[in-house]
Amino acid sequence: MVKVAIMGYGVVGSGVAQVLTDHYDSIAGRAKEEIDIKYILDLRDFPDSPFQGKFIKDFAVILNDPEVRVVAEVMGGLHPAYDYVKALLEAGKSVVTSNKELVAAKGAELLKIAQEKNVNFLFEASVGGGIPIIRPISQCLAANDVIEIAGILNGTTNFILTKMIRENMKFEDALALAQKLGYAERNPAADIEGADACRKICILASLAFGKHVYPEQVHTQGITKITLEDVAYAAAWGGVIKLIGQVKKLDNGKVEIVVAPMFISHESQLSSVDDVFNGILVRGDATGDVVFYGKGAGKLPTASAVVADIIDCVKHFKARKYLYWDDAQEGYVSPYEDSVISVYIRAAAENDHKGLRIAEKAFGKVKRLVRSDAPESEFAFVTEPKSVMEINACCEAMKDQGVEVLSMIRLSDL
Amino acid sequence: MVKVAIMGYGVVGSGVAQVLTDHYDSIAGRAKEEIDIKYILDLRDFPDSPFQGKFIKDFAVILNDPEVRVVAEVMGGLHPAYDYVKALLEAGKSVVTSNKELVAAKGAELLKIAQEKNVNFLFEASVGGGIPIIRPISQCLAANDVIEIAGILNGTTNFILTKMIRENMKFEDALALAQKLGYAERNPAADIEGADACRKICILASLAFGKHVYPEQVHTQGITKITLEDVAYAAAWGGVIKLIGQVKKLDNGKVEIVVAPMFISHESQLSSVDDVFNGILVRGDATGDVVFYGKGAGKLPTASAVVADIIDCVKHFKARKYLYWDDAQEGYVSPYEDSVISVYIRAAAENDHKGLRIAEKAFGKVKRLVRSDAPESEFAFVTEPKSVMEINACCEAMKDQGVEVLSMIRLSDL
Repeated sequence: MVKVAIMGYGVVGSGVAQVLTDHYDSIAGRAKEEIDIKYILDLRDFPDSPFQGKFIKDFAVILNDPEVRVVAEVMGGLHPAYDYVKALLEAGKSVVTSNKELVAAKGAELLKIAQEKNVNFLFEASVGGGIPIIRPISQCLAANDVIEIAGILNGTTNFILTKMIRENMKFEDALALAQKLGYAERNPAADIEGADACRKICILASLAFGKHVYPEQVHTQGITKITLEDVAYAAAWGGVIKLIGQVKKLDNGKVEIVVAPMFISHESQLSSVDDVFNGILVRGDATGDVVFYGKGAGKLPTASAVVADIIDCVKHFKARKYLYWDDAQEGYVSPYEDSVISVYIRAAAENDHKGLRIAEKAFGKVKRLVRSDAPESEFAFVTEPKSVMEINACCEAMKDQGVEVLSMIRLSDL
Repeated sequence: MVKVAIMGYGVVGSGVAQVLTDHYDSIAGRAKEEIDIKYILDLRDFPDSPFQGKFIKDFAVILNDPEVRVVAEVMGGLHPAYDYVKALLEAGKSVVTSNKELVAAKGAELLKIAQEKNVNFLFEASVGGGIPIIRPISQCLAANDVIEIAGILNGTTNFILTKMIRENMKFEDALALAQKLGYAERNPAADIEGADACRKICILASLAFGKHVYPEQVHTQGITKITLEDVAYAAAWGGVIKLIGQVKKLDNGKVEIVVAPMFISHESQLSSVDDVFNGILVRGDATGDVVFYGKGAGKLPTASAVVADIIDCVKHFKARKYLYWDDAQEGYVSPYEDSVISVYIRAAAENDHKGLRIAEKAFGKVKRLVRSDAPESEFAFVTEPKSVMEINACCEAMKDQGVEVLSMIRLSDL
């Protein structure tokens, strides 16, 4: 029998306790050991919980109990989660976590400690909720070089965009609906401004390419400025707007990484990933494109991923798992301004014809997009590929001619 | 250093040799051992191959060489592959295979021998080519009960159906094109009659539910009778026709398993899996629906899955992997006639109005489908859910009234 502890009894933590209890026998069969919850750490009281007698408020109890060999950290946030996890690994306990903030900020350091102590630090649930993605990338693709990863990594923003696309709902109304349905938090900033997607693409990038990428190194745009006009132009172009986290390995050994709304062609498998679902595309040199799709969040999907990691720890007390990446040298992340991309631009001028002439003067060849009911002053176009720096200069040139850029969104090459 | 042998130097086998060579260093890093090809078994000569000196024609050389610890069986077919793999496992060597025919016919027996000998028998490449599916089902979903698996498991038929749907190409022409492009073999029977998809759903069913299902226990229909009229009616219904392998766990402990063309609603993630791609939906009690998408065949995707299994064997010489299932008792597979399904029926009668009246008399409530350019004698409808036995009886009743059933296709509930 193996004793485990759960730190945090929120949505995911209570799910972990429930899955470990409901599937007790089948988990024991798979882990070849019975897995028992010894402690649940939470500062709150849960008088009605079926896990009475297991709740504790003092972290030191877990740290100092040699019987506890695996700990699930599902508190979220960076502190005290980081301090606790570090102490546990240093004490020779394996840790599993669903905490993407922690892994994105401290992954390399914690993996190093885990390696030194010959224990496991696993985090399947930190990306894609119940979608298996960390393991497939690191294991099944072992005989394959990953070239690129791109995905819809945040269900809340995908729900909002789906409502905008399918029901012509404004951003604010779609956000309010998401909050009402419990998909968005009262403070939705981490979702709608892209920070959540950013943490996840950092984790995937670190794993796939072996060097840690930190969130603050990533150019991150959210979806707060997306309008229904942009949605209409995306449709005219032949696609939809999705919030994409994307990382590519460049020939010079650096990585290009970004989180931004993008126009996704209807031809792409990611264009049909709707509502709160996530879709993650992994491009390998041998496998080609593989896409993983499913619910990226939620109590039971996430909890089942945490429990799968617990089982894996129990099965691998003696053998460390494959997960590892190093810290990166400076300059590993290619500057965003150097990325070569095509963009869609919606702008206002005295009238559309004059505006388009100015656009062509600034950008060279462009392709006009039209939508019905556009005011006379509005015009929109997509550009040929240019570096972000050049694009910004072109926009400045248009501005000098009296054109106001209302929106600018990347075209994805997925 | 670990010595491995490859049995079969066809498309997949030459890919395995190539991947092991091209990725030698990164594989060594991941497996923590260098992996060297010692023998390649093939009866043919390959004077221009870069692997001169490794080719052998006598299986006994591999069997009797204690240095060879892992063997990749990529010959295909049941004999002599089965005999060789059995002998290798009994000799205490780990075996990996891409051979779905072998796993579907002999999986339970070979897994049992592997267990007794404490070696591994892995077959990630047998389903979905380069798409990781065997591992995710058995590992990541360890804390989750799988309820149902359904998928587009055969790229050749999916290519043919996509051409019929998108380009209004007739079945025969689409098949000829698939053969010309190398997607279909000269004898395409195993693909177009559903046997290939059947083997794959048998493997997934055995793995997910722990008991072996044999291909001959599965009601299997191919796509040879699908016409462009059926494609048009599927569009009128709001979907597309796909060849689906599906298995569900029933409340009585039995499984319902089938391979058949089905109407798939545009709402389903599987409806947009086109061309030679595969898509596999795994429905879990905790994770909900997870879909895996990618190229289900091809030299390098399949080879990379075989090599990933080789790496896994090398990393797990001392610890057996999770893969296992038992033989099933009689009656484990629910009789097809008991399945409750809705179907689309296209039929001919004196005229459509008369035909529909007869259909309503036989089936009760039906929903008519219409297409343009239908001859006056043709009519089509979808039924309410009924058992297959009842549906057959209803068709007989229609026949007695002079109605000729031209097509009958299941509606999927995916």
